[in-house]
Amino acid sequence: MSEPFDAVDVITTKRDRGELSDGQIDWVVDAYTRGVVADEQMSALAMAVLLNGMQRREIARWTAAMIASGERMDFSSLSRPTADKHSTGGVGDKITLPLAPLVGACGVAVPQLSGRGLGHTGGTLDKLESIPGWRAALSTAEMMRQLEDVGAVICAAGDGLAPADKKLYALRDVTGTVEAPPLIASSIMSKKIAEGTGALVLDVKVGSGAFMKNVDQARELAETMVALGTDAGVRTVALLTNMQTPLGLTAGNALEVRESVEVLAGGGPEDVVELTLTLAREMLAAAGRDDVDPADALADGRAMDVWRRMIQAQGGDPDVQLPVARETFEVLVPADGVLTQLDAYQVGVAAWRLGAGRARKEDPVQAGAGIEIHAKPGATVRGGDRLLTLHTDEPERFARALEVLDGAFFIAPHGSRPDLLPLVVERVG
Amino acid sequence: MSEPFDAVDVITTKRDRGELSDGQIDWVVDAYTRGVVADEQMSALAMAVLLNGMQRREIARWTAAMIASGERMDFSSLSRPTADKHSTGGVGDKITLPLAPLVGACGVAVPQLSGRGLGHTGGTLDKLESIPGWRAALSTAEMMRQLEDVGAVICAAGDGLAPADKKLYALRDVTGTVEAPPLIASSIMSKKIAEGTGALVLDVKVGSGAFMKNVDQARELAETMVALGTDAGVRTVALLTNMQTPLGLTAGNALEVRESVEVLAGGGPEDVVELTLTLAREMLAAAGRDDVDPADALADGRAMDVWRRMIQAQGGDPDVQLPVARETFEVLVPADGVLTQLDAYQVGVAAWRLGAGRARKEDPVQAGAGIEIHAKPGATVRGGDRLLTLHTDEPERFARALEVLDGAFFIAPHGSRPDLLPLVVERVG
Repeated sequence: MSEPFDAVDVITTKRDRGELSDGQIDWVVDAYTRGVVADEQMSALAMAVLLNGMQRREIARWTAAMIASGERMDFSSLSRPTADKHSTGGVGDKITLPLAPLVGACGVAVPQLSGRGLGHTGGTLDKLESIPGWRAALSTAEMMRQLEDVGAVICAAGDGLAPADKKLYALRDVTGTVEAPPLIASSIMSKKIAEGTGALVLDVKVGSGAFMKNVDQARELAETMVALGTDAGVRTVALLTNMQTPLGLTAGNALEVRESVEVLAGGGPEDVVELTLTLAREMLAAAGRDDVDPADALADGRAMDVWRRMIQAQGGDPDVQLPVARETFEVLVPADGVLTQLDAYQVGVAAWRLGAGRARKEDPVQAGAGIEIHAKPGATVRGGDRLLTLHTDEPERFARALEVLDGAFFIAPHGSRPDLLPLVVERVG
Repeated sequence: MSEPFDAVDVITTKRDRGELSDGQIDWVVDAYTRGVVADEQMSALAMAVLLNGMQRREIARWTAAMIASGERMDFSSLSRPTADKHSTGGVGDKITLPLAPLVGACGVAVPQLSGRGLGHTGGTLDKLESIPGWRAALSTAEMMRQLEDVGAVICAAGDGLAPADKKLYALRDVTGTVEAPPLIASSIMSKKIAEGTGALVLDVKVGSGAFMKNVDQARELAETMVALGTDAGVRTVALLTNMQTPLGLTAGNALEVRESVEVLAGGGPEDVVELTLTLAREMLAAAGRDDVDPADALADGRAMDVWRRMIQAQGGDPDVQLPVARETFEVLVPADGVLTQLDAYQVGVAAWRLGAGRARKEDPVQAGAGIEIHAKPGATVRGGDRLLTLHTDEPERFARALEVLDGAFFIAPHGSRPDLLPLVVERVG
């Protein structure tokens, strides 16, 4: 045996509620990346971690081991500070699209490495790819040039960044081990630390449409990630934000791009504008620029200008007509009253089933598919008015989308009020 | 999707402490056997079962699904009743060797399908293979003929019996999921029920050298297995027996065959004789032959006669000289007093490291390797007397064996008594 540890020993240590040693963690992450620890061993370990947890020390070491599995990027040669944002994923969460150019317009460069959607949550790259010609893959040199020239870039992470995380994430997805807080925290933070951002704002979603269903779970995850970032020298703060109901009035790729452009033009739904400005202020403050008010850059068109240059720099035409789905179906309000509930998870799954998301990594998505929302919780509604418009290229998808929307919304008598978390629940860090 | 269930749904049901439906269990066992459910999915499920348990109903269904994955044998055409024994595995547990011919000599046929050792517990087939020429693989026709003519057979299980179990057992072995009581129970009972024995006696080991470290765990496992057997129409009883210290005075392949032959010749260590007779009485009673006293068949040589014919029928010479290891090393008693402890697990691992067991399925074992024990707990010993004799063909193995024997035994002042479980702790069923 030339290996210093044994996979079964590592697995049984965690299975029996023990703490993994630094040596065990370094070895198992490296050996898994090398293929010496097999997928079936890592998935058993991931399930043991999910059910038995990890200490902060173990999570920090695991994160460091994942970073060590690949390259690190370095933005210290840029002429301005950098700040990045990461959302744990929700429904209608298009915030990255207006936020990156907005912060870029305020003098802080945003190197946003994003992912594709899987399951009921949309992916930032899928949304931007609904703009014809726009490309997600950039070389490191292209990314640096765009950060210097434009101030913001949203692109795909290269293969060299935390390859252990890439392999482990794909494994967790098919083995029911996604929802392990230590693995969620280390997956997010290994990529963000390796990416080399100077400051990081975490948007930790809470509610039915998020991985974390309650505030206590979300706070625990946020605290873990803030500690990991801070220990690694990244100025990190986290906001817990509401994901009980979708963000904004759209869920779907081109639909969300359109809404983001409305926000950049000074309009757009109130919750999207508010969350974009709140996160922008946090990013600017973390990057040492709390003297700048992002509301000005939104109002005077500077953010829109960065958006247009950002899209153009990656091959897209900001003035192009976005794709529109071939078919629509209207879901009507069933009674007069107050809309007290519109469930994020059910809307997310419905949009996914309409073609906005993918079941397997290799599946394509429909640019135009998704859901338009005509009333948000708290609104007074009239029976027969439109509540949702479903969009898809394939009308046979409507039935399965409607199935999951059953019970997704509730109309209460006039005078009722929804029982919802505030948009920003809590700040950690 | 042509599959009626989804692997991730099944995994997350058990992960979240839910009960698996009959449909989920039937599907996941079948789909795993077909390769539709991947190893990394089944190992995550196995870990969730280990940590979150299964209800009796789920275990029964899981067992039935494993039986349904292969063939069933049928001994109803034999002229005599059948009874089988299964031990959950221990150190020095050679009981099958004298027991099968003894019960066979009493008019009840013993169709003993056995396995090879893995880890620190020895395998019955490995022990018998130390007899030159003896072969473990028999066709079903050969097995039936030998049962009719000789009355006892110990051989390898064919590939057709519970193939799902074969695949799952190999997976559990490398993923730290062996020690899950629902999976241990269903693995054992699926093979025994598919084998078609009419009666079954389970020897559930308790103590450091066993999978079940305490009596409560062992009782739970025994009750589960007795219920599974009874529900499947097999008359099943279980004994919980002591595995805090090795059985008999030998651990190792040829060493244990020699001790078994001593028992069949009317001698042998007291505990081996007592457990052999106790289990024989249970098997005879379960097969409806409690009128016969196995002590007679041991005393008058009938059991030895069946042993000789059983070995000859499978190509072995019962009079051959058994292999002897090339090197020995004596471990001496360090002080005068009473031996109060001799740890089964440590002796088992030491014998394994000397070459009696294998680390991987494909490794060979040494026929002569193992440990002779010169004093058992309770014995008065004298400093400088021999306590253990280590045997191996490769003297470089002594150091690692001695390492694990550190602290394996304890000499207390004269007048002390060991604090041990009785040989037979409890009877279930």
